Amino acid sequence: MATILHQFNRLRLRYAFQLASHAVSSTTTAERARGDKVFFGCQTLCRQHRGISGGAGEGTSLPSAAPPRLPFSSVTDEDLAFFRHVLPSRVITDPDMLESSNVDWLKSVRGNSEVLLRPRTTEEVSQILRYCNERNLAVSPQGGNTGLVGGSVPVFDEIILSTALMNKVLAFDGVSGILTCQAGCVLESLSQLLEERDFIMPLDLGAKGSCHIGGNVATNAGGLRLLRYGSLRGTVLGLEAVLASGQVLNCLATLRKDNTGYDLKQLFIGSEGTLGVITAVSILCPRKPKAVNVAFLGCSSFQNLLETFQCCRGMLGEILSAFEFLDASCMGLLEKHLKLTNPITECPFYIVIETAGSDAAHDEEKLHNFLEEVMASSLVTDGTVATEDAKIKALWSLRERVTEALTHDGFTYKYDISLPVEKIYQLVTDMREHLGDRAKNVVGYGHVGDGNLHLNITSPTKDPALLAAIEPYVYEWTAAVQGSVSAEHGLGLKKRNYIYYSKTPEAVGLMGNIKTMLDPRGILNPYKTLPDDLGLPVTQTSRE
Amino acid sequence: MATILHQFNRLRLRYAFQLASHAVSSTTTAERARGDKVFFGCQTLCRQHRGISGGAGEGTSLPSAAPPRLPFSSVTDEDLAFFRHVLPSRVITDPDMLESSNVDWLKSVRGNSEVLLRPRTTEEVSQILRYCNERNLAVSPQGGNTGLVGGSVPVFDEIILSTALMNKVLAFDGVSGILTCQAGCVLESLSQLLEERDFIMPLDLGAKGSCHIGGNVATNAGGLRLLRYGSLRGTVLGLEAVLASGQVLNCLATLRKDNTGYDLKQLFIGSEGTLGVITAVSILCPRKPKAVNVAFLGCSSFQNLLETFQCCRGMLGEILSAFEFLDASCMGLLEKHLKLTNPITECPFYIVIETAGSDAAHDEEKLHNFLEEVMASSLVTDGTVATEDAKIKALWSLRERVTEALTHDGFTYKYDISLPVEKIYQLVTDMREHLGDRAKNVVGYGHVGDGNLHLNITSPTKDPALLAAIEPYVYEWTAAVQGSVSAEHGLGLKKRNYIYYSKTPEAVGLMGNIKTMLDPRGILNPYKTLPDDLGLPVTQTSRE
Repeated sequence: MATILHQFNRLRLRYAFQLASHAVSSTTTAERARGDKVFFGCQTLCRQHRGISGGAGEGTSLPSAAPPRLPFSSVTDEDLAFFRHVLPSRVITDPDMLESSNVDWLKSVRGNSEVLLRPRTTEEVSQILRYCNERNLAVSPQGGNTGLVGGSVPVFDEIILSTALMNKVLAFDGVSGILTCQAGCVLESLSQLLEERDFIMPLDLGAKGSCHIGGNVATNAGGLRLLRYGSLRGTVLGLEAVLASGQVLNCLATLRKDNTGYDLKQLFIGSEGTLGVITAVSILCPRKPKAVNVAFLGCSSFQNLLETFQCCRGMLGEILSAFEFLDASCMGLLEKHLKLTNPITECPFYIVIETAGSDAAHDEEKLHNFLEEVMASSLVTDGTVATEDAKIKALWSLRERVTEALTHDGFTYKYDISLPVEKIYQLVTDMREHLGDRAKNVVGYGHVGDGNLHLNITSPTKDPALLAAIEPYVYEWTAAVQGSVSAEHGLGLKKRNYIYYSKTPEAVGLMGNIKTMLDPRGILNPYKTLPDDLGLPVTQTSRE
Repeated sequence: MATILHQFNRLRLRYAFQLASHAVSSTTTAERARGDKVFFGCQTLCRQHRGISGGAGEGTSLPSAAPPRLPFSSVTDEDLAFFRHVLPSRVITDPDMLESSNVDWLKSVRGNSEVLLRPRTTEEVSQILRYCNERNLAVSPQGGNTGLVGGSVPVFDEIILSTALMNKVLAFDGVSGILTCQAGCVLESLSQLLEERDFIMPLDLGAKGSCHIGGNVATNAGGLRLLRYGSLRGTVLGLEAVLASGQVLNCLATLRKDNTGYDLKQLFIGSEGTLGVITAVSILCPRKPKAVNVAFLGCSSFQNLLETFQCCRGMLGEILSAFEFLDASCMGLLEKHLKLTNPITECPFYIVIETAGSDAAHDEEKLHNFLEEVMASSLVTDGTVATEDAKIKALWSLRERVTEALTHDGFTYKYDISLPVEKIYQLVTDMREHLGDRAKNVVGYGHVGDGNLHLNITSPTKDPALLAAIEPYVYEWTAAVQGSVSAEHGLGLKKRNYIYYSKTPEAVGLMGNIKTMLDPRGILNPYKTLPDDLGLPVTQTSRE
């Protein structure tokens, strides 16, 4: 035990020294990335690759490409006059100012919207949508624009409806821990507010410096704390949404339990702005843990990593709050592109384990017992532990900044896959073998605890032949083990036509019925989430 | 510290001796209660009380009464022949055998169904529903028939579709803890199966010996572990449902994360069998905790109980798995009707606290520190602690058997209310004062951690004048503090018309649209969940 402690303390000191100069906040990360000027226009990406296996566009059209523009109206001067009446000085038409809202964070898709609206209130959103619905104008709701599947930017000339000015905290109940706020509050700001009150947000993700809570809920964001606090489907207690018709649906309850009729808020969680615009949410927030520890460990094989996970769940139990991993290729990219330093000796696999508990001594004892066990059994070959805030952040950045490092490695093909946990790295290995030297890098990282793999494949430039080798291979592999082709990123524009790999035609057909029920003209975030070719109709009979 | 330990050990010994002869399982409880012959037919209950405040039926009709029978077809010999063809020897028409399925557990409502169907497979359910939909025959799905709001029995002559024979466990993954099973598995059987494999079910409730997991999911059952493991909206990973048309909707995923389109399973969770018949579910199950402790404590005031709760959340943190309460009146009923013995000195309020953790020594230390704190500050006046299974069960029965004790106290008016936690007992106090000596007993118990009060009012016999004094007072009181008129029991038949106290007309209107979309003829569990008078239509425009 003493040996283990000594080893970890030594590593901790070394680590603190090495990483000090490299820490940057997520906000800076997002902003820096946004400064680049590498565009891969969606329209130009189209029609270069073969269609989805078994799909309609055999041989020519890429399933992720935009379909033809639907017959929505175009914005007229009269429309602009109306918007300016409702939102004085909050109607943006300057192309330069629109630029960052037309392009996604990855710079992989871009729209050509000429109007950005910045409402402050639910009533304003209602007026705008009622008008747009009557005028048949398409609307693209936008939060922090940090999505990875092209869901948060217009595809053609849809009006961008930004929640950026809807950033008021409406209430926080320090007894129950229930936060109620407008949709445009930035996740990190909410986290700071709560931490001052001895609570934390139930979700945390790399984009926290930019993403909006409304966007998090609309996309059912997962992130780094899901293992411990569960998904937003459990922690979101209520929400307010404006429907396409302009009708305000107030489901902003602040109760842990409410079984009065159907749980309508669930329709909007994860529907990516296609069923309504979320304007406010209430969320159940956990107490801030009194003690937090982060361990960064190395494993010599993925099998050892899985056994470490099993051991960890047993020995850390209720204090385990995250179990994340990255492979050696990810570490290479962090070192090469972001100049981060590996705090431990080189290994094929790295783990980030976080504990969060109410008693520092108990937690430390549990953690040390666990580390002793995994070191003694050689499941883990090296590691370092952090208990102080700055060091914890530095260790976390090794996991959180992989996405950023990848943007510097060339064109990146990104896959966000849910798999049975014991299979999550097999896909990376198989893909690497399958692609041979056609790819620059094939890397895997993600949330082991949730069975969620982020598979990324880089190439010096956009490479249609490489893409044709990746897809549909990756989706077929996933479907064969009953996985999901989108664990937490959603479908957006880019993945919408791959939905059938994870959902039955009957299910997709019912989704289409729901869309028609709530947004009959289809003005809300068109071309997103649902496939171009909707599944079977669900109900064959109608009320007589 | 030593004093505290001594006191608790002494109490523990005393308690073990006193309770030993009174323990009965929940199954026995349910069966015994079902043996009684006290019926309060819903139809005869009707038309005696004034309508919901502001509602349509001014002065004459009780909102909980059944509406007139809708124009469904009646079962013919030809229909029976078809059912017998699909379900050989599993079509019950013997009135004696139908009796227990026509009457709810509380014996408060009864239907007059003449047919009970017992399918074994999803395909059989599909064939039955397709046929019933075409024939316009109404169907009442039934699990363990343990519901408390008249949701699980027919109102008129609906065909009863029982899940009792759909009781196969389909899979259990010991790595991920994901259980997949048919809807008719009894909760307690699943718990036993999992415990042998070192896991537990994420929900537990008093009716566990009879209730079916499909019914639990269909009613979004809460229960005793919600505080720790969250609601079924988070733990149910997938389900399979058969729609009214007979179409099978397979959403039986076994992934923690899956953001591919709308989360259709949420529609069926908590919709009380009105949108589809759940035939199978997959559930994420937590590891079995290595150590469990239960403390039974007494408080001299509800304010002290609330402060004990706050202290408990801080000091027990992540190991707290339940915080339940009952008042002195409940204890009186347990002693009088069930001959249970109060293990501690008499107090106005009693608390059941459960801890569940991965390290017995750590948990015991946390619990003892907490007990020392609340005893020293006089928040708690007396208490006893149990760590052994039998004693834990005995302590839990004091909380779990209150419902049963109430059935022996006369006619019971039952309310299942969600409130801000600091207000949950105020409603009991106000109601007691409001009713004066018109009620026999006004008692409160429930889930403090979830803000969920079970308010029960007994009377020697059914008493229309008493009911008129309770309602709408109880609902108006609840609505005034933004509470919910059904925290976990659902709306069923009895509470359907009170939905507007907790939901807006727009929300109820949308629920109606969803019902129409999925069950256009309304054959599934008619007269339940949705009010007789549906809210505003939600979308005014239609696709052109």
